[in-house]
Amino acid sequence: MLDSLFKPKAVALIGASTKELSIGNVIIKNLQRYNFQGPIYPINPKAPDIRGIKAYPTIFDVPGDIDVAHIVIPPPMVPQAVEDCGKKGVKNVIINTAGFKEMGIEGEALQNDFVARGKNYGVRIFGPNCQGIINSDPQYNAYCDFTFTYPKPGYISIVAQSGGVGAVIMQNLFDLDVGMRMYASNGNACDISIPEIIQYWGNDDETRVILLYVESLDDPKYFMDVAYEVASKKPILAMNAGRTEVGAKAATSHTGGLAGGKATDLIFKKTGILAFSDAQEMCQAAVAFASQPIPKGNRVGMITNTGGPAIIATDELVEGGCEMPPLSDKAIVKLTETMFESASINNPIDVVATAGAPQFRSAVDVMMDEEQIDSVYINFVTPPFVDCEAVAHEFAEVSNQKRKPIVCNYMTDKAQWTGTTKILKDGGIPCYDFPGTAAKALISLCRYNALRSKEKGVVKQFNDCNKREVENIIGNAKTSGRKILSALEVYSILDAYKIPSAGWKIASDSQSAVDAAEEIGYPVVIKADSSEIIHKSDVGAVAVNLKNKDEVFAKADEMMNKFSVKDLNFFVQKFHPGGRELIIGAKAETNLGHLIMFGMGGIYVEILKDVSFELAPVTDVEAEEMLSSIKMTKLLKGYRGEKGIYREAVIEIVERLSQLVTENPSLKELDLNPLLAFEDRIIVVDARISI
Amino acid sequence: MLDSLFKPKAVALIGASTKELSIGNVIIKNLQRYNFQGPIYPINPKAPDIRGIKAYPTIFDVPGDIDVAHIVIPPPMVPQAVEDCGKKGVKNVIINTAGFKEMGIEGEALQNDFVARGKNYGVRIFGPNCQGIINSDPQYNAYCDFTFTYPKPGYISIVAQSGGVGAVIMQNLFDLDVGMRMYASNGNACDISIPEIIQYWGNDDETRVILLYVESLDDPKYFMDVAYEVASKKPILAMNAGRTEVGAKAATSHTGGLAGGKATDLIFKKTGILAFSDAQEMCQAAVAFASQPIPKGNRVGMITNTGGPAIIATDELVEGGCEMPPLSDKAIVKLTETMFESASINNPIDVVATAGAPQFRSAVDVMMDEEQIDSVYINFVTPPFVDCEAVAHEFAEVSNQKRKPIVCNYMTDKAQWTGTTKILKDGGIPCYDFPGTAAKALISLCRYNALRSKEKGVVKQFNDCNKREVENIIGNAKTSGRKILSALEVYSILDAYKIPSAGWKIASDSQSAVDAAEEIGYPVVIKADSSEIIHKSDVGAVAVNLKNKDEVFAKADEMMNKFSVKDLNFFVQKFHPGGRELIIGAKAETNLGHLIMFGMGGIYVEILKDVSFELAPVTDVEAEEMLSSIKMTKLLKGYRGEKGIYREAVIEIVERLSQLVTENPSLKELDLNPLLAFEDRIIVVDARISI
Repeated sequence: MLDSLFKPKAVALIGASTKELSIGNVIIKNLQRYNFQGPIYPINPKAPDIRGIKAYPTIFDVPGDIDVAHIVIPPPMVPQAVEDCGKKGVKNVIINTAGFKEMGIEGEALQNDFVARGKNYGVRIFGPNCQGIINSDPQYNAYCDFTFTYPKPGYISIVAQSGGVGAVIMQNLFDLDVGMRMYASNGNACDISIPEIIQYWGNDDETRVILLYVESLDDPKYFMDVAYEVASKKPILAMNAGRTEVGAKAATSHTGGLAGGKATDLIFKKTGILAFSDAQEMCQAAVAFASQPIPKGNRVGMITNTGGPAIIATDELVEGGCEMPPLSDKAIVKLTETMFESASINNPIDVVATAGAPQFRSAVDVMMDEEQIDSVYINFVTPPFVDCEAVAHEFAEVSNQKRKPIVCNYMTDKAQWTGTTKILKDGGIPCYDFPGTAAKALISLCRYNALRSKEKGVVKQFNDCNKREVENIIGNAKTSGRKILSALEVYSILDAYKIPSAGWKIASDSQSAVDAAEEIGYPVVIKADSSEIIHKSDVGAVAVNLKNKDEVFAKADEMMNKFSVKDLNFFVQKFHPGGRELIIGAKAETNLGHLIMFGMGGIYVEILKDVSFELAPVTDVEAEEMLSSIKMTKLLKGYRGEKGIYREAVIEIVERLSQLVTENPSLKELDLNPLLAFEDRIIVVDARISI
Repeated sequence: MLDSLFKPKAVALIGASTKELSIGNVIIKNLQRYNFQGPIYPINPKAPDIRGIKAYPTIFDVPGDIDVAHIVIPPPMVPQAVEDCGKKGVKNVIINTAGFKEMGIEGEALQNDFVARGKNYGVRIFGPNCQGIINSDPQYNAYCDFTFTYPKPGYISIVAQSGGVGAVIMQNLFDLDVGMRMYASNGNACDISIPEIIQYWGNDDETRVILLYVESLDDPKYFMDVAYEVASKKPILAMNAGRTEVGAKAATSHTGGLAGGKATDLIFKKTGILAFSDAQEMCQAAVAFASQPIPKGNRVGMITNTGGPAIIATDELVEGGCEMPPLSDKAIVKLTETMFESASINNPIDVVATAGAPQFRSAVDVMMDEEQIDSVYINFVTPPFVDCEAVAHEFAEVSNQKRKPIVCNYMTDKAQWTGTTKILKDGGIPCYDFPGTAAKALISLCRYNALRSKEKGVVKQFNDCNKREVENIIGNAKTSGRKILSALEVYSILDAYKIPSAGWKIASDSQSAVDAAEEIGYPVVIKADSSEIIHKSDVGAVAVNLKNKDEVFAKADEMMNKFSVKDLNFFVQKFHPGGRELIIGAKAETNLGHLIMFGMGGIYVEILKDVSFELAPVTDVEAEEMLSSIKMTKLLKGYRGEKGIYREAVIEIVERLSQLVTENPSLKELDLNPLLAFEDRIIVVDARISI
């Protein structure tokens, strides 16, 4: 485990400097100021001491054992320094120096060099191109980092791929007067990885909440394994940047490209990590997670001593999916006894500005007792004519009962109301400066409850699938160097996995197209099939609703003249008029598996981008959620007299497609577009597969 | 004007109290602490002095003139107190006491009483049930308010209908170390109104930005007049609460109800007020508005010394409608000379963490010179190994040139980096704690530029409309006590305003329905029309696509048997197959005029709520915007081979409808649903009007 990294007994700094404005000086200063509990060993070939601490010419001159050695010297010197650390028996190096893999092939070679040397000596490497680690535990006070925020001990641990974002988060928690447990920002992450750190914190009892910022996942499978395990033990809140590139990608690329970049958010969702798109919102939620219980539902009781902020908070809560149920008769009777006459006894309870401790306490107690209330939101402005400390004491007392979560929009000048502020803080009540902010934090608690209590479902295994057949088809296509499968191959694969498509036959000329049509039964569709014809409908290679043999013959003849390609065949299918157009797709993601996409076809996917995604293998619950989470989902259930679609059959196709790509990972992109969904059947009428 | 209210030379307090935790004491304390520049006159029948200030038994005992008298005594005593103030020649009273109109009819009677007495004596009344006013101008230091934030002088003035929200905003600006000019929260607003205050601040040169929070507008017309005038002089940023009730309304009520509650946001837009849905976002935008110029466009240049926050900010900016154009070749050449080798020369410019003043200055200068850049976003983390004060000086110098707006995501511990923080503040650079927050402030500046520079357009006046005819129809309906017009009346009104509908005839029985159909030409629609049949298609009172006289006769006969109502008529219309279903509606709002709604009909309005709104009278620019701002707008322009609709004709119908309701304000709700839009014509095929 990473004990020797996060709980170092002695720290060295290779490249320690007497120059104030240098990393080699700042790290020593940070260790000193943060009161590091072990010896600090500055390594510098010339200086006898640095910042008043005895320096050593080389790592070999250091008298004791070293758990962590920072390396801040120029890149070309780093591999030798790592080797020296190995020889000295240093357990971990934190390489702050930049200029390695992120700078091109030369840097990458250097990085590979020291990674190999580290491995050789059993030295674990943190970084390079990184900030470092912090542990606020007073037993260690380890500030092995060149940043500037000196956090107080707490229960939130932060790991950030970007040091800048890590610094923002750490500083914000500090500004909010909230403690931090451990911090890590590991830059290029050549050895010690983010999942390894998360796993370590999963076993750290003092870490109650983990905050994560990532830009990319190098090994998504490993990340998922760890995330499943740790997220089942404690909340992980995470943010994933770069979402508009995703949007841009989705807008430009048509087929399957719609799925690009979504993967990380889906990993978060699948493993039970709570995702955020705003760093401030994530920090503010973390404060609530660190001290409050998770609500059992989304029903909020609100208490306020001022009107406007209650309206704003209500807007926010309702938009965020919370409910504000009315109070029970019993509660109203009780409140009528304790509240001032001008109070409004309802949800929200407006205790009015003159309310003191007895009124507030009665309101909070009622909310705690109400069965149909899961959490409590308080708007508390500090009127200068009220004993606010007494009010705060009541809040703190109830909060300490840990029955239901409380958040507070605390409207005051903290520099004046110091006593009240301290009582609330010591009571563990998460306080926010705006009604909307407090509401968002509470919404996050509710979202987490929903995520955590969601039924996981099962991945159905269909035993009637012919994997061998698919392997043969893919093998043949590979052998002949093709990346896009022919219609025959595509439909054979669908047949092999019992994904229902319109009845089809292959014909080589106009007459055999007619023969095929006669056998299938009219009306039919014919499609000119060739490796050289990609977007069939755009180039006139599709003719629909052909009602007799003359029409079939004429169209086939026309296409034969039009497309003078040597591998031309006709693909003859039953034509199914009507039905709701759907689209189901799969796309392979590097090192991860496949994203599965579901949506309504045509304008809905093209203009509205009305699609949903999940990671394969998709469970039955996830497949159902894919159908219910698109914007136009109501249409699927039937609308205004129109019949709904055969939902169970669509879900089964999603599941079969998921099994198909999971069992055949070399399928790169697969699109069933469109499927026609009817009340009693679902039929794939066009499909493409690339390998 | 309100000079004597906001610039009082002497303040009295009727109901002054020796009790610390009372409003009658707190207001005296606030005036003292805020260093009010004039005499304070506590009025108390018994106490010789209050908080060390000589008290007077009655207002008549006060030796000097009084500009503002607070009244904090119980409700029943207030009318007499107002009368006394009148007799004494007090110019304004601020009635902090609550328990008037907001509490029911008894309170309303009391309020009416003192309003009459105030009017009688020429005493202006602020409140009741309110906080009061603050003026930070050192000439006055008027803190006529019972709240607790003591703002420094500045350029932002705040008016809030809710005192709680006003306090939140004022405190937040204080926490952000940003000054405030004046403050007002006038509660019940029985006399001095929010528009009057806004107008006063419009003429106050020191007020550069006005922040507004409203929950309802008593006199929207007056508000609009003032807002047009003041918003043309200085930015007004505003927030309007209660938006989810709107959503709820929209979801439950079908016809026209879709428009409910939108009015205030539309007033903001129409008058040039920048709307916010989040109070924190509004405060943070205000900071930028108070010190930075308005950008000329939405093209942002970004400078960063850390990677992750640049990605987050880019996400936010792009989602907010900003662009980040590439740099010119000239700029790249220049930057190559000044930047460190590891810097990334692009937009964003990543100057890297080790960058000092020369690198940052060069980057900012380049952004200021680039023609295709309208504003500058800076991510500035304070590395402990960089001379950050020198960097800040460069930013401040460029900011003072006032060429393009700058915002900064300033990532630091302000308690340590005090020098740097002060330099940035003195340089007027708006600094934020999160990349997303800084981006949102910049987006607000860009949104304001777009709002301000938007072409206003003209309200077209159609002279071929028969207003007299419409007045007659409405008159007749009113006379006969009907609120819902008959189909005949509805289509006659549309004809009178040249809104094209499907050719129609009225028939009284099956045979005359056939005669009408023969004259109109097949196919036809027939509708059973009666005041007792409301939702025609739901009850089977509509038959479409009837192709010959037998079909017409049979259907009409069937309906005659089905609906045994005495005023039954058949409405026979040409049937138009195909076309895109649209919906255009109008709904009267109290004291305001009409909201006009446009959307795509059927599932788009019902499931997607894909509609846009404007206030009548609608300009040509607004009408065009209504078409282009719905989600499915691409469909209107033609899509995938389908022809676009006849856009100009739809715009003209919106304009004619706007003229119809503006000229005939007693039309309460009007729905054209659906209109069928074709490439070459638009036809209303169903419509409802209520009066």
